[in-house]
Amino acid sequence: MNRPKDEVAALASTPVPWLASPGEHDGIVLASRIRLARNAAGWRFARRLSSAQTRDLVEQLAGAIDSVLPGRLLRIDKLSPVQRRVLIERHLISLDLAGSERASGLWLGSDGGRTAIMIGEEDHIRLQVFAPGLALERLLREAIAIDRRLESRIPWAFDERFGYLTACHSNVGTGLRASVMLHLPALATLGELKPILRGLEQLHLAVRGRFGEGSEPQGHYYQISNRRTLGLDEATIVATVTEAAQRVIEGERLARQAMLDDEQRRTQLEDRVHRAWGIISHARTLSGEELTEHLGWLRVGLSLRLPPFADSRLSWTALDHALIAGQPGHIMLTQSHAEDTVRRDRLRADLVRSWLMGGNNDVRQVH
Amino acid sequence: MNRPKDEVAALASTPVPWLASPGEHDGIVLASRIRLARNAAGWRFARRLSSAQTRDLVEQLAGAIDSVLPGRLLRIDKLSPVQRRVLIERHLISLDLAGSERASGLWLGSDGGRTAIMIGEEDHIRLQVFAPGLALERLLREAIAIDRRLESRIPWAFDERFGYLTACHSNVGTGLRASVMLHLPALATLGELKPILRGLEQLHLAVRGRFGEGSEPQGHYYQISNRRTLGLDEATIVATVTEAAQRVIEGERLARQAMLDDEQRRTQLEDRVHRAWGIISHARTLSGEELTEHLGWLRVGLSLRLPPFADSRLSWTALDHALIAGQPGHIMLTQSHAEDTVRRDRLRADLVRSWLMGGNNDVRQVH
Repeated sequence: MNRPKDEVAALASTPVPWLASPGEHDGIVLASRIRLARNAAGWRFARRLSSAQTRDLVEQLAGAIDSVLPGRLLRIDKLSPVQRRVLIERHLISLDLAGSERASGLWLGSDGGRTAIMIGEEDHIRLQVFAPGLALERLLREAIAIDRRLESRIPWAFDERFGYLTACHSNVGTGLRASVMLHLPALATLGELKPILRGLEQLHLAVRGRFGEGSEPQGHYYQISNRRTLGLDEATIVATVTEAAQRVIEGERLARQAMLDDEQRRTQLEDRVHRAWGIISHARTLSGEELTEHLGWLRVGLSLRLPPFADSRLSWTALDHALIAGQPGHIMLTQSHAEDTVRRDRLRADLVRSWLMGGNNDVRQVH
Repeated sequence: MNRPKDEVAALASTPVPWLASPGEHDGIVLASRIRLARNAAGWRFARRLSSAQTRDLVEQLAGAIDSVLPGRLLRIDKLSPVQRRVLIERHLISLDLAGSERASGLWLGSDGGRTAIMIGEEDHIRLQVFAPGLALERLLREAIAIDRRLESRIPWAFDERFGYLTACHSNVGTGLRASVMLHLPALATLGELKPILRGLEQLHLAVRGRFGEGSEPQGHYYQISNRRTLGLDEATIVATVTEAAQRVIEGERLARQAMLDDEQRRTQLEDRVHRAWGIISHARTLSGEELTEHLGWLRVGLSLRLPPFADSRLSWTALDHALIAGQPGHIMLTQSHAEDTVRRDRLRADLVRSWLMGGNNDVRQVH
């Protein structure tokens, strides 16, 4: 029995615990994430360990985690490429970890994936806590509580002057990365995104695509996170990212309103939303990128209650589901014969139609 | 009272008499046209005449035509650019004539525009007769009958050795151009169009876009016509073009069947048809080119009875109407405030939706 396969397939069939659109911000904020990088004292950094040592480390750390945090271990190095892809698509592991051949693990907290610990990435431990909406402060408290419990079993490599020691200097200090995933289609359409993102960079904040470092922005999803981890306390970092996110959210809200107030822009916006619905509800083959793009416009349509969504039963839950479950790895792992792109794109078109229109959610054909 | 404006506006609100899809060839043939180039004996070619002489010529020719052919004269040089555009869009005048500043006219036969005579183009007279479907032989008989009547009033410049003399050597001889307008999306999609078109060129046939010389193929519409006018009799020319058109029609039919028979191609075809419908029925702004493209796929969907058209009441008449009436000049002349592209594209989206979905033509939302 291939347990890891079963577990990842089961995971791929469940909603992610960190999406509950629209939340308090009209669907502009998707999720928040706190990540802490830690290394076990008395061990070299991961890249300096032999394969055998890495295996030992992963086993020891997994054992220690198990004793303080209910959950289960997935051995990443035992997973197929498709299974790893599913974990990336759910933001549970990094692109780096997915590509690694060495022993490595993912501890999945029994809170349904809200807490996830990468073991044997660049740092020995990368603790992540996720939540829907803008929730960095709460997540920081949760992460610190878990960190304390882990520390009771695993003494961290810590320096009085520098703070937590990490493999890359950019994480030294707090080891904290606080990220918010935002959906910014109106700012992007109005060409106001670039100056805003440049402003964020001046505040030492990083702006990345949906899948973090090395990923391209797709469907106008952006992650904002701190660059500095040293010389600032955790609360300050979280407050800075939160404040910046709030300003960007407000900018996106204003940009949406500006589009509605201008006759020509309003037409453009309505056209995008209507077309997104026309294509999603009619296409017979649909690429993952196209899906992400169209779902983005449907989110906007739903949040602004544009026709044809003014009184439709198209649900945010269905849009959230399609955004995750429509990804290539998810389709490959949950459907048979989805290995080749042609069949997968066809399956995706059929699946998305059934998710979004299933039953009959009364999205009227507007004349 | 501005009569020419009234007349062209009235024209723009009526169907063209040469579209009656699908006809006998699954909608692959749109229309046939016979054109005869003639020059009046005793006059120089148009480009050698002074402005005053041109005006005289146009008046004399119009008077002569009037005495043998019921109809009415439109003075092209008195028309606005938008009115001229409408005449181009209905294939009644050439791009050349529309751009001319000199006196020129269009004689519109009282058969509702099936017979049209350009006066003062490159040649003094360009007689055109149109019909839906593949009908070159019949049109040739009609054109010759009209030509005989004209000749009784206007002696043609004719040379025993060369035949009819024309301003451009390419028309000398019969002065005949026999054209068939074809819709070839499947051949184009399968990449089989280019070799076929090259083959036609070897048969001394020309392949052009929808609006003839100097126009780009748009929405997979192509005109096939003869290049040679000298040394062949009219019947042979018409037979050659007809035969070539029949072979291309058969090629398009086979290409459509080949797409249906191949799983992947069939998906591609269905996807195009469904998307065309999804976009046409949802877009809030629609350019003329996009309309032409999508209407083309709807034609294919209707002719192959693909879902969602298997038992819809979407009519060929509506598709024919949208193809003509959705053009920029037509919208500008029939709608107010349609001068700027933004408003026109928005109007077009609304108009097309009402033409194609008006009433409620039962195109089901297929799940």
